[in-house]
Amino acid sequence: MRIGYVQYNPSFGEVDRNIKTAVDLIGSVRADLLVLPELCMTGYLITSRHEIADLAEEIPGGKTTEALAELARKRSCFLVAGLAERSGDNLYNSAVLVGPEGYIGHYRKLHLFFEENLWFTPGDGDLPVFDLGTTRVGIMICFDWIFPEATRTLALKGAQVVCHPANLVLPFCQDAMKTRCLENRVFAVTANRTGVEERGGKSLSYTGMSQITGPEGEIIHRCGGEDVKVVVEKIDPVRAENKAINEYNDLFRDRRPEYYAMLAKKRSNGND
Amino acid sequence: MRIGYVQYNPSFGEVDRNIKTAVDLIGSVRADLLVLPELCMTGYLITSRHEIADLAEEIPGGKTTEALAELARKRSCFLVAGLAERSGDNLYNSAVLVGPEGYIGHYRKLHLFFEENLWFTPGDGDLPVFDLGTTRVGIMICFDWIFPEATRTLALKGAQVVCHPANLVLPFCQDAMKTRCLENRVFAVTANRTGVEERGGKSLSYTGMSQITGPEGEIIHRCGGEDVKVVVEKIDPVRAENKAINEYNDLFRDRRPEYYAMLAKKRSNGND
Repeated sequence: MRIGYVQYNPSFGEVDRNIKTAVDLIGSVRADLLVLPELCMTGYLITSRHEIADLAEEIPGGKTTEALAELARKRSCFLVAGLAERSGDNLYNSAVLVGPEGYIGHYRKLHLFFEENLWFTPGDGDLPVFDLGTTRVGIMICFDWIFPEATRTLALKGAQVVCHPANLVLPFCQDAMKTRCLENRVFAVTANRTGVEERGGKSLSYTGMSQITGPEGEIIHRCGGEDVKVVVEKIDPVRAENKAINEYNDLFRDRRPEYYAMLAKKRSNGND
Repeated sequence: MRIGYVQYNPSFGEVDRNIKTAVDLIGSVRADLLVLPELCMTGYLITSRHEIADLAEEIPGGKTTEALAELARKRSCFLVAGLAERSGDNLYNSAVLVGPEGYIGHYRKLHLFFEENLWFTPGDGDLPVFDLGTTRVGIMICFDWIFPEATRTLALKGAQVVCHPANLVLPFCQDAMKTRCLENRVFAVTANRTGVEERGGKSLSYTGMSQITGPEGEIIHRCGGEDVKVVVEKIDPVRAENKAINEYNDLFRDRRPEYYAMLAKKRSNGND
């Protein structure tokens, strides 16, 4: 199957323009699955809750999800894209999955980064894995990468390809994704944005370098830091089914969960 | 405090000679904590269970543990070293911790690599953390690195420094330890061996490049691939207490264990 990413530089608040940018970039590209960046139609450097509340949309039903679904229908592909979600009084940093038949599902970022904590409610649903027929895809968003439990959870739930919309400003993630894919034997598509946002006296520079990573930790493709482009690579998702690394070791079978203290401390819900 | 590693090339089966090599290398080095490689007094490329059964020792009480304890007493330091353990009918790939007062504790490798599965029993105890007064140290061995749960468990249990005896033959671990330390905000000392072992028609080349890694994922020191030496670096273990990476994010507080599927599948004890 052909998987890839769309790396570009959204303009803050200009949803229609950003949708057109993404649609134009994707153009006539042939792909089965494309990942777009985090908050890819609103921009990222939010300066007030009011501001992002005005831009956030319902999922499904909002303008962005509708536009993405229309694009997925026309291109006969699946799209994963980050967007600001409004649900009742809550705002979420979410990612939606759409396909040729329309809306499929979405994920609300579990681990909010930095000032996202001022605007968004932390995710209150599971890390999801969707069976698309040709492959099983999981979704996580940006900062989720630093918690090994996120990718592990997706892989244990059967994800072959981890879709990873991002707005990365630190230099660690791209290399760390080699470890994430190696330890879980999965593919990942990290779709990062480019450019600099300057708003309200603040500034953020995004690192680009979107990356398609393979189950042996190999970088299948890493984009330039400032390129605006779509990159598609052909992969065999079945490779992610094989957790064996030699005749004696299978990375999932060899786990010893009875000795892991993963749930033992620092539970955010206090239910120790 | 001063932490470091001893990188050298043990000769298979020559326990007395290997002990002397380690003692000579450590010489008059001033350190608070030194880590030696996996199976550092027996060699690694085992060709029969009988062979390693003859070389394995009880912990505590065996010749190697006694020699290490004597060295720790003379040098007024703590030592972590990998050795083959015999306990009843079982053999374990273990690591012992000794200090100026003698034997403190040991760990039995939970995740056996490749043909280790032919000779050793998988570890049947916890990933341990020991409070040495000046610092809290955790122990894991070699291939444990690829399971993010191992380092995570040690960090959640309070380890500030992860002692990591290794006999690495693949090229992935050293870079991955940057991610392990970054995601857990801990120090790690990966003590690898050097050289080539050729026995029974088989051959293994060890990659050296022992590494001291810091809680921001920084490589404090990485050894050459073939150097035989002791390296000691001064660190402040208290840095590992701070899991906050900015005013909004604390990597332990931000965990969302209620959404992690870490225990949900592939339990090796079949208690799903």
